[in-house]
Amino acid sequence: MIPIPAWYENPRIRQQLAEVSTATLTTQLFRHGLRTRYIAGVRPVRPGSRMVGYARTLRYIPMREDVDTLELLADPDNPQRKLIDGIGPGQVLVIDAMRQASAGSLGYILALRLQTLDAAGIVTDGAYRDTPGIRELRIPAYAAGEHANANIAAYHPADMDLPVGCGGVMVVPGDAIVGDDEGAVVIPSHLVEEVARDALEQEIREEFIAERVRSGSPLAGTYPMNDDVRAAYEAWQAEGAKREDVD
Amino acid sequence: MIPIPAWYENPRIRQQLAEVSTATLTTQLFRHGLRTRYIAGVRPVRPGSRMVGYARTLRYIPMREDVDTLELLADPDNPQRKLIDGIGPGQVLVIDAMRQASAGSLGYILALRLQTLDAAGIVTDGAYRDTPGIRELRIPAYAAGEHANANIAAYHPADMDLPVGCGGVMVVPGDAIVGDDEGAVVIPSHLVEEVARDALEQEIREEFIAERVRSGSPLAGTYPMNDDVRAAYEAWQAEGAKREDVD
Amino acid sequence: MIPIPAWYENPRIRQQLAEVSTATLTTQLFRHGLRTRYIAGVRPVRPGSRMVGYARTLRYIPMREDVDTLELLADPDNPQRKLIDGIGPGQVLVIDAMRQASAGSLGYILALRLQTLDAAGIVTDGAYRDTPGIRELRIPAYAAGEHANANIAAYHPADMDLPVGCGGVMVVPGDAIVGDDEGAVVIPSHLVEEVARDALEQEIREEFIAERVRSGSPLAGTYPMNDDVRAAYEAWQAEGAKREDVD
Amino acid sequence: MIPIPAWYENPRIRQQLAEVSTATLTTQLFRHGLRTRYIAGVRPVRPGSRMVGYARTLRYIPMREDVDTLELLADPDNPQRKLIDGIGPGQVLVIDAMRQASAGSLGYILALRLQTLDAAGIVTDGAYRDTPGIRELRIPAYAAGEHANANIAAYHPADMDLPVGCGGVMVVPGDAIVGDDEGAVVIPSHLVEEVARDALEQEIREEFIAERVRSGSPLAGTYPMNDDVRAAYEAWQAEGAKREDVD
Amino acid sequence: MIPIPAWYENPRIRQQLAEVSTATLTTQLFRHGLRTRYIAGVRPVRPGSRMVGYARTLRYIPMREDVDTLELLADPDNPQRKLIDGIGPGQVLVIDAMRQASAGSLGYILALRLQTLDAAGIVTDGAYRDTPGIRELRIPAYAAGEHANANIAAYHPADMDLPVGCGGVMVVPGDAIVGDDEGAVVIPSHLVEEVARDALEQEIREEFIAERVRSGSPLAGTYPMNDDVRAAYEAWQAEGAKREDVD
Amino acid sequence: MIPIPAWYENPRIRQQLAEVSTATLTTQLFRHGLRTRYIAGVRPVRPGSRMVGYARTLRYIPMREDVDTLELLADPDNPQRKLIDGIGPGQVLVIDAMRQASAGSLGYILALRLQTLDAAGIVTDGAYRDTPGIRELRIPAYAAGEHANANIAAYHPADMDLPVGCGGVMVVPGDAIVGDDEGAVVIPSHLVEEVARDALEQEIREEFIAERVRSGSPLAGTYPMNDDVRAAYEAWQAEGAKREDVD
Repeated sequence: MIPIPAWYENPRIRQQLAEVSTATLTTQLFRHGLRTRYIAGVRPVRPGSRMVGYARTLRYIPMREDVDTLELLADPDNPQRKLIDGIGPGQVLVIDAMRQASAGSLGYILALRLQTLDAAGIVTDGAYRDTPGIRELRIPAYAAGEHANANIAAYHPADMDLPVGCGGVMVVPGDAIVGDDEGAVVIPSHLVEEVARDALEQEIREEFIAERVRSGSPLAGTYPMNDDVRAAYEAWQAEGAKREDVD
Repeated sequence: MIPIPAWYENPRIRQQLAEVSTATLTTQLFRHGLRTRYIAGVRPVRPGSRMVGYARTLRYIPMREDVDTLELLADPDNPQRKLIDGIGPGQVLVIDAMRQASAGSLGYILALRLQTLDAAGIVTDGAYRDTPGIRELRIPAYAAGEHANANIAAYHPADMDLPVGCGGVMVVPGDAIVGDDEGAVVIPSHLVEEVARDALEQEIREEFIAERVRSGSPLAGTYPMNDDVRAAYEAWQAEGAKREDVD
Repeated sequence: MIPIPAWYENPRIRQQLAEVSTATLTTQLFRHGLRTRYIAGVRPVRPGSRMVGYARTLRYIPMREDVDTLELLADPDNPQRKLIDGIGPGQVLVIDAMRQASAGSLGYILALRLQTLDAAGIVTDGAYRDTPGIRELRIPAYAAGEHANANIAAYHPADMDLPVGCGGVMVVPGDAIVGDDEGAVVIPSHLVEEVARDALEQEIREEFIAERVRSGSPLAGTYPMNDDVRAAYEAWQAEGAKREDVD
Repeated sequence: MIPIPAWYENPRIRQQLAEVSTATLTTQLFRHGLRTRYIAGVRPVRPGSRMVGYARTLRYIPMREDVDTLELLADPDNPQRKLIDGIGPGQVLVIDAMRQASAGSLGYILALRLQTLDAAGIVTDGAYRDTPGIRELRIPAYAAGEHANANIAAYHPADMDLPVGCGGVMVVPGDAIVGDDEGAVVIPSHLVEEVARDALEQEIREEFIAERVRSGSPLAGTYPMNDDVRAAYEAWQAEGAKREDVD
Repeated sequence: MIPIPAWYENPRIRQQLAEVSTATLTTQLFRHGLRTRYIAGVRPVRPGSRMVGYARTLRYIPMREDVDTLELLADPDNPQRKLIDGIGPGQVLVIDAMRQASAGSLGYILALRLQTLDAAGIVTDGAYRDTPGIRELRIPAYAAGEHANANIAAYHPADMDLPVGCGGVMVVPGDAIVGDDEGAVVIPSHLVEEVARDALEQEIREEFIAERVRSGSPLAGTYPMNDDVRAAYEAWQAEGAKREDVD
Repeated sequence: MIPIPAWYENPRIRQQLAEVSTATLTTQLFRHGLRTRYIAGVRPVRPGSRMVGYARTLRYIPMREDVDTLELLADPDNPQRKLIDGIGPGQVLVIDAMRQASAGSLGYILALRLQTLDAAGIVTDGAYRDTPGIRELRIPAYAAGEHANANIAAYHPADMDLPVGCGGVMVVPGDAIVGDDEGAVVIPSHLVEEVARDALEQEIREEFIAERVRSGSPLAGTYPMNDDVRAAYEAWQAEGAKREDVD
């Protein structure tokens, strides 16, 4: 088990993360000098997915034929089974499958167990097996492919709750994992509060910009905003605030 | 033409294969020491696909500009055309496209011909062309991509009814080819009967396990089953059998 | 800006291009000795897409950290912004993203601007960001992937309106870009008229052939047509012409 | 066994092929409309290799664990062993290893056997094993990598003397296979005589051009030659012919 | 630190491993059901390399810009530095660089430190930097590429002495790592004694076979040996034993 | 033509660049926030290469069969030929071959012309053809592979002297291109002076560190240096300076 991260205890932050897109989050992470926090090549298994939680990690290494047998699945020390039975609400299982979709890194019954325990989601940079079944569940699930084979055909579950790589991104247990229809991003714990707040502000700003562009404004001066447009934006915001005061 | 495999003549086996998932089949094949029988990278062109049949094979090699001209399409010895015109009910056309989606390895009119002849399906480890049209047909069709180009832009049809590779899997004419929404697996003829029977039993067992997990049981002891759970499972089975006797 | 290509001014040609599939177009291009004019690996972001227009090109090169900062987005000389603000009706923005989906090569607000300006479509051999948003627009959009990162995380916009590569295909400004559900093809300006006309004829011929195949005709003799079938086809055509005369 | 190709019986053609580079041969093949006859990704295992012969082909498909066991190596019908024991002088063993260096497609003892039988060379688009030992032999050997594993760890030898693909090139038994330090090219039988003759002429021409460039001539006008330079070249040739007459 | 494996304390085993090729070792491992123990894609940095030792492991994950700064290099807890300063004689540093040669996973000064401490070798499935310098050292070094960049440009050193993947092979600390000019193989500790002994026997047998093949024997009957050849081999061995008795 | 960059006119800077390794240069570039300035995948064609010069760029795009014919080679506007005939001393020809070694991007006669004109080197992220011949020249030449085919079999020369990508790195005409046995790095013009000076200082510091490590010092405290070691280093430097004064 790992401690609940401070940011996760704050419902406002969770709410902000649930409202913004992964694209917006990467822009904010870029502002902090982090150029690659998007888990490359990983897609939701069903449209309309939305995920906010913090990382629990499972690490795979290449299988060895004499170790990765069907018996391993009954081994109480198998970290894949231990980690999943011990998952808690708000946690996202992040699997380092070495970016290889050469077997299913997780299947239906395990995904069902995670859903039953109120896990916040599953992300693998490999494949799922039983993807049609997983698609029928409610739990947000992201993967880089589909593969019918059992995990032991290609992987050995090595350990849990260590920093891992997933889709080319360092994932530290406790990091925020946020997913939408475009994929998933990883936010280091110490940046979550600031990034979530600024991302929401950015989305409001871009809503205003999109409105202008929709009405025929050129990108130049509008996106990003020059001084005139920024003044109009601030007026629009003030207006909105006033309206809300009245309501 | 190739002889109809013994397993295919048995409707019970065909029925079993039609009821189980490709994921379950790979587990049974793993039990026989076969770790990779899933055709990697290949997906159905439409959701809800379901395919059971036996393999007829078509082998492509790289094209040569002076051989692979539009005239080749009218050549009565072109194995692509011969094989397709001679396909029979229950047969699955398996194309070894060298795992390259660098042209369409088959298009709409050929797929339509296969459907008219009651072929059981089409699998290529390359791409289709006219995929939007093929998607409108009923015949199950699996591919690794889409590509508008005619096959002669990249491939030369070399021969038919020889053992080939498809998605990294050896396919021998007569092997069972089973497909669902997750992809397709290849079962060597001599294993089909045993694998089909055991796969169906596994699915019944996993239905019981999934029910337990849904009700909150941990993976440990349930999946795989320890002695207590196995006893409960056997009781559940006996119960079901009794109920069926009554019905 | 580039001049409007002669072929584009002819509404009959535009109409012909809008009625034929990309697969048919590649066959016609093959007849002219062009084996690879399909933009490899690129798919429409939404089903049912249909695109006809002429190319405006944007070229990306690898980013450099000190150049590709958030400030670049406000730079009036940024060719990405200049090109998009200056796009015109019937034009397709073609992005050479070096065939790498390592960031989003274009996002929602820019796609919205293009739609507002009546651009005919967008094609990138990289990824979009904000793909869920772009999917909600009307403008046809083709890409090789999805990636939440801003373009400056991986790319630098180098210049516009030069010949580029896109998905392995040379694209010259003014070339016809035609897209359907299978992807997009590029037709050199000087061939557009002939290719469009012949493609439409081919589709009519293949409609006849498909009808025959649907009724049980073998491929041999039908596809391609032997002399007997060709005579029947010509009669069918004459019939159709007569009927149309009557109507 | 396959018949000795006519071109191979002609010692002048063999001599011409032995004198020209693979680069020159590809230019001549290009003139015949063949753009890709170079076996991509394949290098000689030792510097200074020079190979001229005609193709015998061995085809690999993916292994299956129950078929590709150590017992297979003693099987008299194993096409790998049959083909190698039956190789003849002037023949080049061409292995279609599916462009995968995932095991050694041939090892030291088999290469030694080929050398003892005066085979003209070995080419694989996979890897060798025992490469250090093969490097000590005299037989020209080309491969795409090195891999210590036995071939049965990844491949199954399917058949021999059929057309195959090697490094993306169609290879028909009897085709000329020519190798130098840059790799190997495949010349269709019916073009060998013309390509060999023209390649040698091209090399003489380029010798003259290189001499000019070495002396400071610009590429423009020299390479390719304009009328003046061509006149000088023809004089130089006539001069050479005269000198040879005198000698 | 990890305990010295029992097999390593036995000088006879170390000697056997030093005499056999990696190709022979993979055949013995195949006999134990292990099909892939060769570290794929990894070559010695200089010809004539020979390595025998046991694994110490270093694990890399993707870098994060705010963590992987020049300051990290001075951090006493940096596992890369700790592991290397604590290496002992006979140990092979095995780096899991995620099979990516996207930076140098180790450079000259660290390799020099390992040599000074009598390490038995270095293996990375990424690249080295300062490869020209490392080539001048004596320590056996194997890598998948060369890359001038410092490790922190792409990697973060996560931890040490855990099971890792290297070139697609599971490596457990204490495993035997044996290298020759063809690359490196990994032998699980419990198999080392048997594999080393049988590999040496196999090499003696293959020496006899190679001699026969050199003298014109066919593969059939010789490799593998039929009963007659086996009898001749046993006589040859007895002869050799007698000779050695006399010496 | 492009102007000679200021840094190139300073012989001290050229001398410093000629003395340091590409690995050292990447460390200095990292200090300026530039993580990837090493041209990935590109190696010298002969050992012991050393290159210092500034970039002239040539851009390739995918070929089109009707444009990229043998006639193109005689076209006076072909940017490949124009650029090479106009190259000057100290210039490095950098070819953007789209990171594809699918044909030779340059051959012997063109490399010879560059050498005759005292070009400082050639770099391509594709392949050369005639590599055995280019290896015999003196001009430093770096490439990602070898391929016998003429460039027009895969590429079209689009233009010259524009910013391009090479091996994943932005290259602006005038940038410093430095090569050693490990490959080549690109230094933006405005950083060359500072990077060259600091790189040389770093190499002197690392020479001292290597000497310490060779004598048994641990990495900890030595590399990077702690205060004690730094004091010793400064004394060593002062000593050296004194000695040089005496000489």
